[in-house]
Amino acid sequence: MPVKNVFYAQSGGVTSVINASACGVIEAARANNRIGTVYAGLDGILGALNENLIDTSLESDEAIAALKHTPGGAFGTCRYKLKTIEENQKEYERLIEVFSAHNIGYFLYNGGGDSQDTAYKVSQMGKKMNYPLTCIGIPKTVDNDLPHTDCCPGFGSAAKYLATSIREAGMDLDSMSTTSTKVFILEVMGRHAGWMAAATGLAAEKESMPPHIILFPEIALDEKRFLSKVKNCVEKHGSCAIVVSEGLKDKEGNFLADSGLRDAFGHAQLGGVAPVIAQIIKRELGYKFHYAISDYLQRSARHIASQVDVDQAYDLGRMAVEKALSGVNNKMLTIERTNANPYQWEIGTVDLSKVAAVETKVPTEYITEDGFHITGSCRDYLLPLIQGEAYPPFKDGLPNYVNLQNHLVEKKLKKFEIA
Amino acid sequence: MPVKNVFYAQSGGVTSVINASACGVIEAARANNRIGTVYAGLDGILGALNENLIDTSLESDEAIAALKHTPGGAFGTCRYKLKTIEENQKEYERLIEVFSAHNIGYFLYNGGGDSQDTAYKVSQMGKKMNYPLTCIGIPKTVDNDLPHTDCCPGFGSAAKYLATSIREAGMDLDSMSTTSTKVFILEVMGRHAGWMAAATGLAAEKESMPPHIILFPEIALDEKRFLSKVKNCVEKHGSCAIVVSEGLKDKEGNFLADSGLRDAFGHAQLGGVAPVIAQIIKRELGYKFHYAISDYLQRSARHIASQVDVDQAYDLGRMAVEKALSGVNNKMLTIERTNANPYQWEIGTVDLSKVAAVETKVPTEYITEDGFHITGSCRDYLLPLIQGEAYPPFKDGLPNYVNLQNHLVEKKLKKFEIA
Repeated sequence: MPVKNVFYAQSGGVTSVINASACGVIEAARANNRIGTVYAGLDGILGALNENLIDTSLESDEAIAALKHTPGGAFGTCRYKLKTIEENQKEYERLIEVFSAHNIGYFLYNGGGDSQDTAYKVSQMGKKMNYPLTCIGIPKTVDNDLPHTDCCPGFGSAAKYLATSIREAGMDLDSMSTTSTKVFILEVMGRHAGWMAAATGLAAEKESMPPHIILFPEIALDEKRFLSKVKNCVEKHGSCAIVVSEGLKDKEGNFLADSGLRDAFGHAQLGGVAPVIAQIIKRELGYKFHYAISDYLQRSARHIASQVDVDQAYDLGRMAVEKALSGVNNKMLTIERTNANPYQWEIGTVDLSKVAAVETKVPTEYITEDGFHITGSCRDYLLPLIQGEAYPPFKDGLPNYVNLQNHLVEKKLKKFEIA
Repeated sequence: MPVKNVFYAQSGGVTSVINASACGVIEAARANNRIGTVYAGLDGILGALNENLIDTSLESDEAIAALKHTPGGAFGTCRYKLKTIEENQKEYERLIEVFSAHNIGYFLYNGGGDSQDTAYKVSQMGKKMNYPLTCIGIPKTVDNDLPHTDCCPGFGSAAKYLATSIREAGMDLDSMSTTSTKVFILEVMGRHAGWMAAATGLAAEKESMPPHIILFPEIALDEKRFLSKVKNCVEKHGSCAIVVSEGLKDKEGNFLADSGLRDAFGHAQLGGVAPVIAQIIKRELGYKFHYAISDYLQRSARHIASQVDVDQAYDLGRMAVEKALSGVNNKMLTIERTNANPYQWEIGTVDLSKVAAVETKVPTEYITEDGFHITGSCRDYLLPLIQGEAYPPFKDGLPNYVNLQNHLVEKKLKKFEIA
């Protein structure tokens, strides 16, 4: 088999461990003489369309190894959806033109649901347009909403960060509650699936421990029952620590975050959901509140990454190369839980066609009957994913992350106009 | 000298290392037979007024040692201001009654500016009302705004957390900026003094590194110059990471966070300042944005505490006991920087009368001429304070913090009605 090069790219929202997958891909490729250079797409699939290929062979072994502890997406990422071949054949012809010009035989795409859809479309292209291309999807998403995998790299670290944060902020709140703040609200990501909200429940080892209430996007807010729960909690424990998912909806299916607030010009205020919940509590119960919105912090907090998560992300990258060389094609790699306790896992595969645009929500049996917390089975599922502390190295008091040089390969083709 | 007991209490907003000071106090007292029991006030000075004294002698050595790595205030805190003796003599008579009933000869009060004012008033009481009481203030505040001390325990850890967070979130932003978010805003605490905002500047080791812009409460927002800076930054670096202090004001001296937004009922929306800045940028420059509000997270993030900060907090607690025994009275302990590089410090003292209600802001020479970043001398001052990683122990993937039993001493007095 002739030696072919690899196109690897990162897509969608990044995580604190997606670069660990990149590290796995590049290290595995460097260790194997049956494979050529790993070209990384600058800004995901756009790097292929624009022929912006980063030559990773120009980076030192040390720099590549440092990717394992560096958050963000080292090669840039994109939110760009390929149309179908029927809708925009030119784009696919361009991809083949670029791959062909640079002797690319492997397409490794690292992303979440939308990105696996891209990987699927590219795999279809290979078949339909008769270009020999091995396509492998490497999963990644803090949302943990990909199907057919035990979990998604990036989620475990975000989960560890958020559960730690609500434990810490809850202790702060508890100290203050006699004369000051009685309610603290932490807003977490997850527009449709409440996995990150659920993960914070791990911090509540006892009913008295924060978070006391979790508001899931899967459960419409019942304001009356919620307020009653908050009141009971403050009366019983002195304070109430709440986690709310950004995607929380009311009974009519509207996002709470679309608060109806208008500025002097009548423009809608696109606020977070935490202040909306805070105002409801203030108005109805009068409690003093504080709230935090962790936003990008939760998906970039590499300083408190889960060792299990880092290991899985790295191994998925490494195995993407090995599977590709062994003939696996048109698959997304998965994590298979082979044993519950102690947690054991191995890497499996699933057809890309079965993954594209399917979203896994938090199932009913993982949410307590009252809708405000996680069940024991949810805890059993989540707990292994946050184990181990994979601290990055520090320099001068701060994490020492790598910035690659990202040299682009010389272009061989004319400029392509993206429609 | 007869053996007397200690009243120790925590006051005001807590930090991730105030319990390290408590640990220092209790461990030093346990090691010295010239001192009796440490009674901790339940919720600060209220614990004295209400005769709610926690008997710390009932806690194991292990539990006390664990305070060193536990955030929040283990005995509860309060926001409660004592009036002057002239205004409310009854309150002071009550304090003496309680201290006398429990053989208390040492008053160790752990807090920020307002709390040192309380310590000062109590020290005045001792003199005026002829009750022998040794009063020592132990500094603490994430705001770093106490005078006559090199820094304030709690600040270094918040600084380390925030500088780490903007570095991480900035890398996330940078990955996304070609097709998505171009501006990220992190809101930090500091209503009057911009020390925490300044600390994030440590992450920008080069001009290209985040944060690109810092908005201090000391500098009124010049919207036009700010927007021009944001635009230049995005055009030069592809994205712009901004840190804004909650206390940012406009040229008329109004808080930006009072955004003028009204809900359907005409109620003011008490939002953060980050969304206000975000909306200004969106309206004028059209950039997609994200923002985070770290709120309590920044002052409770014990999982990434600074070792220097923990050491100082612990030693201040320990030295409070030793100084009290050696006859020091009516003083707040301070950190004195005895050498700049390498950083060396020792513990000094200052009259409580010189500390009460004085606030130290970020000086002009620590802010760059354009008002948007920190100078080299600011960096030299700040850098030693975030050195070393004092990780807490973890259990089951989460920090293992201690919850004390907090048994109250049996009351000897009648109930007191706080006015």
